[in-house]
Amino acid sequence: MENQVSKQIFKTLLSFFLFVLLLSDTVLSVRKSINLQKPCKHFVFHLHNIAYDSDNVANATSATIINPLGLGDFSFGKYVIFDNPVTMDENYLSKPVARAQGFFFYNMKTAYNAWMAFTLVFNSTQHKGTLTIMDANPIMEPTRDLAIVGGTGDFLMTRGIVTFTTDLIQGNKYFRLKLDIKLYECY
Amino acid sequence: MENQVSKQIFKTLLSFFLFVLLLSDTVLSVRKSINLQKPCKHFVFHLHNIAYDSDNVANATSATIINPLGLGDFSFGKYVIFDNPVTMDENYLSKPVARAQGFFFYNMKTAYNAWMAFTLVFNSTQHKGTLTIMDANPIMEPTRDLAIVGGTGDFLMTRGIVTFTTDLIQGNKYFRLKLDIKLYECY
Amino acid sequence: MENQVSKQIFKTLLSFFLFVLLLSDTVLSVRKSINLQKPCKHFVFHLHNIAYDSDNVANATSATIINPLGLGDFSFGKYVIFDNPVTMDENYLSKPVARAQGFFFYNMKTAYNAWMAFTLVFNSTQHKGTLTIMDANPIMEPTRDLAIVGGTGDFLMTRGIVTFTTDLIQGNKYFRLKLDIKLYECY
Repeated sequence: MENQVSKQIFKTLLSFFLFVLLLSDTVLSVRKSINLQKPCKHFVFHLHNIAYDSDNVANATSATIINPLGLGDFSFGKYVIFDNPVTMDENYLSKPVARAQGFFFYNMKTAYNAWMAFTLVFNSTQHKGTLTIMDANPIMEPTRDLAIVGGTGDFLMTRGIVTFTTDLIQGNKYFRLKLDIKLYECY
Repeated sequence: MENQVSKQIFKTLLSFFLFVLLLSDTVLSVRKSINLQKPCKHFVFHLHNIAYDSDNVANATSATIINPLGLGDFSFGKYVIFDNPVTMDENYLSKPVARAQGFFFYNMKTAYNAWMAFTLVFNSTQHKGTLTIMDANPIMEPTRDLAIVGGTGDFLMTRGIVTFTTDLIQGNKYFRLKLDIKLYECY
Repeated sequence: MENQVSKQIFKTLLSFFLFVLLLSDTVLSVRKSINLQKPCKHFVFHLHNIAYDSDNVANATSATIINPLGLGDFSFGKYVIFDNPVTMDENYLSKPVARAQGFFFYNMKTAYNAWMAFTLVFNSTQHKGTLTIMDANPIMEPTRDLAIVGGTGDFLMTRGIVTFTTDLIQGNKYFRLKLDIKLYECY
């Protein structure tokens, strides 16, 4: 009789234990989705910006819509909008995996410094949807983090950061950025 | 004696069970707030944009602040800011439930394509607060999703998406959009 | 024997109880991080905007890049970009704790009303990182809340609101805002 009671108790306890484990897993999966040590998605892309110079309509991917004011020597007030190709490798002629659409402007008197907002628009068999980024871009720093504040489609409700590295600058004509994208909230 | 022990054990187990259930409910309510199958709030509104043409100061709700550059044939560089009425029905004379305040610009050489950021400002007995939206808006698509990246007041800390459908376009003078708003994070 | 079984049962139950408590604490800490009654971080700063008037290159921290259109009497279309100092106290000469980098424009025919997006850039021993804000700013209201939609560095993945109070306006030359920052999502 004692033995029976014990058995019953241990069976009940075991089922509790499993239930609690399951529950704990559920909880951990919520927490995992905001684990800053380990992005839930990670991509590396390259962004290409070819500035419009009135002679390159066919190639240009960005254009200045407001010229600098003359406040300081670092293009304060220059405002650029763009529809730039984004590729897997460093070749700007590679098939784009996304377009980067948005704007930046220079806003500092004492150094080249940009502020920008743009959207990565994915429309391939691999990814459909958008990631939207907005932050200061202190372009003279070797790397800088910008906040990814929202997304749609495959990236619905996502958030994270993108780390920019300037790969290459060719005067005022062309620059290439490495985009290291880390999403910490995925669904 | 055995019976007493058993009773005590079952009482304890029962209270545990209830506690764990309560806990699980707590956990599920956190998860429910980010259930992408079922928005926690859902609204449908209509946005009206009446372009300023220098003759309609009284009616205009938006104005071009930068003209197109001439890069391609799709208004690249045209920059518009607005304070547009948002109504429950399709009539632009209906009492607004919100104002849509922000900007858009055209940024593509090969098609009409916009990028935009704006805020829905609610100030009625029903809703007080803001919802802020930022994303690419590929206006030639029948529907497009834009990310809702933040909110204040009744919509504090909220996120979600808005699906745009172009209801009506009257040349350069007027357009009406249907805004299907789905919030997935509510507090 | 009975006593032994009872002891064992109570030991097991105790360990369960502790485990469940631990779990509940874990869960509550997730919920706490989005407790709208109690921000997880709270700062008060002062932002200083010194408008460029073509004679004050050395002092100016902001400049108009597009002039008003003449649509109504409230500067509709005026577009300003800035790199403003942000200080702990009200003195604009105090050592900045951050820079506020971004833009605002006036967008209403019938009242002074702004829409803005900007980033607080922290680069001190105390804080490194960014907070990005975007919302309508109905400047005639005594206080207004703007959404903080993302962050990087020390503020990675954070969200919340900033409450603006206009401290002081000196014509078109200078204004000072109090920024009461409440973060509800911290990591």
